[in-house]
Amino acid sequence: MNHFEKAQQILQDINADGWLIVCNEDNDIHSHYLLGVGSHALHAIFIASNGKHKIIPVVMEANMVKNSLDKKGLKAEIIPFNSLADFIEKLKPIINLPKIAINFGDNVLDLEGTSFADFIPVGTYNALQKLSPNTEFISAAPIIYGLRSIKSPEELKALRNVCKTTIELLEDLPDWVKIGMTEREVMAKLEFEYSKLGKPSFPTIVASGKHSADPHHNSSHEKIKPGPLLIDTGMRIDEMCSDITWTFWVGGNPPEEFIDAYNTLYESKEIANNYYIDGSPSNIPAIKCREYLAERGYDHEKLFFHGLGHALGFVAHDVGPRISSKAPETDMLKENMVYTNEPGLYWTEKWGIRLEDDIIIGKEKCEVVTYNPKDPLLI
Amino acid sequence: MNHFEKAQQILQDINADGWLIVCNEDNDIHSHYLLGVGSHALHAIFIASNGKHKIIPVVMEANMVKNSLDKKGLKAEIIPFNSLADFIEKLKPIINLPKIAINFGDNVLDLEGTSFADFIPVGTYNALQKLSPNTEFISAAPIIYGLRSIKSPEELKALRNVCKTTIELLEDLPDWVKIGMTEREVMAKLEFEYSKLGKPSFPTIVASGKHSADPHHNSSHEKIKPGPLLIDTGMRIDEMCSDITWTFWVGGNPPEEFIDAYNTLYESKEIANNYYIDGSPSNIPAIKCREYLAERGYDHEKLFFHGLGHALGFVAHDVGPRISSKAPETDMLKENMVYTNEPGLYWTEKWGIRLEDDIIIGKEKCEVVTYNPKDPLLI
Repeated sequence: MNHFEKAQQILQDINADGWLIVCNEDNDIHSHYLLGVGSHALHAIFIASNGKHKIIPVVMEANMVKNSLDKKGLKAEIIPFNSLADFIEKLKPIINLPKIAINFGDNVLDLEGTSFADFIPVGTYNALQKLSPNTEFISAAPIIYGLRSIKSPEELKALRNVCKTTIELLEDLPDWVKIGMTEREVMAKLEFEYSKLGKPSFPTIVASGKHSADPHHNSSHEKIKPGPLLIDTGMRIDEMCSDITWTFWVGGNPPEEFIDAYNTLYESKEIANNYYIDGSPSNIPAIKCREYLAERGYDHEKLFFHGLGHALGFVAHDVGPRISSKAPETDMLKENMVYTNEPGLYWTEKWGIRLEDDIIIGKEKCEVVTYNPKDPLLI
Repeated sequence: MNHFEKAQQILQDINADGWLIVCNEDNDIHSHYLLGVGSHALHAIFIASNGKHKIIPVVMEANMVKNSLDKKGLKAEIIPFNSLADFIEKLKPIINLPKIAINFGDNVLDLEGTSFADFIPVGTYNALQKLSPNTEFISAAPIIYGLRSIKSPEELKALRNVCKTTIELLEDLPDWVKIGMTEREVMAKLEFEYSKLGKPSFPTIVASGKHSADPHHNSSHEKIKPGPLLIDTGMRIDEMCSDITWTFWVGGNPPEEFIDAYNTLYESKEIANNYYIDGSPSNIPAIKCREYLAERGYDHEKLFFHGLGHALGFVAHDVGPRISSKAPETDMLKENMVYTNEPGLYWTEKWGIRLEDDIIIGKEKCEVVTYNPKDPLLI
């Protein structure tokens, strides 16, 4: 079942007439997800519960959208517009329906909320309400969750492939990374390889020395120095992302305290893997990981200040419960969800270590699609 | 005056107590614009009219944000949070004020609307209203327009630099692009150079053959063939983007009809330049360009189906009136705004040509910061 068909089925289940995406300047990833091509202009996508799907692209993108749908075997009427007034005129009759799902979240600042569905900006939403005052707009969260949280066999195949490709590039890294290169040069070279095959999942984090203590460090113009080198990276091929972190040691042999922290993280990650299984509450892997860190003498409350994992898919931060000791225990992992497992220990302004693997949730046991070296790779 | 100070001044002018940005997963570019670093988690930025600015980052990004502000000489209190409940608790007292500007647009589907300010998603906005029910939230459009539409001397300097660097890379292109390379390989190599120095302004468009007829073509795995090769590309250094399109001819000499269209576009662009001046209505350069295309016998209504230019700055599609024959004639260009000038002619499924330069609006005449070859470069 393709994305259009699956969305249509969910629309019927929730008794809605259609799913409307109004997107501008890439501000809703579901546009690329559905069309298979990146638009850089205003457009609307209407997935109809009766199967009469419609796309309203700007004239300059109409042919591009048509070719992309043809290539994917997706059927929709394409209605190009040439001005804002024309866009409104073409959109209005399509959405004059009783109940339409739209990409906004409910209770987004609550743990149980649907922030993953929160895309449409306030001004755009107000304009749509004015355009179709009798339509009831409901949150598209059930459609987005249904489409994206559990992966199809094709998506899992794509995941294994993109992870394999990314790992091969990481394995090559010690051959070409040198002291004195800048973090940006390392990022650029990795992303060069990604762009030939697919695209980066997110801006690669290359963090040398004390930068490794900032989990979301922006790769800088500073040079690689002796010490830890944390690389958090991934690419997208065929609509699936990889997201992998390896922490290397540059220049000589790492000190004992680095090796102990690395080994402890490695083991805590292996322990957590046992709970990446169907029916496990999503807080359990994180709790087990943290218990082990505590047992090994690490003040994890202070040193490990982020969640253990996130859903992975079309984007690096995908749809599904977070894997965190703070997640509600009613959030359950399900077979064929895809997750990261990424424990870290950080000493601010000194250094940090993170080891991140990608994992498919299994019925009895998980499938670890990537790996981290058991001992830190030396550069 | 830095961005914090300038925003504060505008807040005082519009009688608002503060400017609130609540951002998640990069969904509001003003976060990076203000902080100077890319966040990949929920956070809030509050620019206060009384100068007591506050940032609420997640713990894992707090040190990174602090270091970035220090580097830029910006002062703000940093209040890290460690859970959603904690975020709310820390945000609530800060926004308990009578009038706060927030990034939403008004009348965004009207030509006169403020879609450039439309960022905050509906669910996030609803949560903020619930959190601070007595606050009047107004559109931050005047702040965004005041900060970003007219460029400072430092921004113009950065623009000249980034354009020079990009042009040098484009000049090198005929030395290494070969028939048989894929469009993605060409994109990857250009972006590799960009990433070492800055970052791509947007995904580079490499469009060979009939792909050049799709103005927003997504660079594909197809090989470069003899015929037109349209490359629309740019990078960001020091917070300013370049955005340049050159159309090459690959393999032998171009046919007469290609040369005539190329020359006509080149001349239409030069003519339009005369109207990239302070006080010119923003529709005039486009009207003059189209008049020339018509004079030369091109059916521009059919073949040139996009605007002539857009504002350029921190992002490729920046804030300011569009340069389009359809723009309201009350929209005026002002000195030190920065624009693209990019006429194109497209024959769907056959080929397309676009020539795009970057321009600073001048008092008497504009400054053309880039150039296009007078005759098509041959590869």
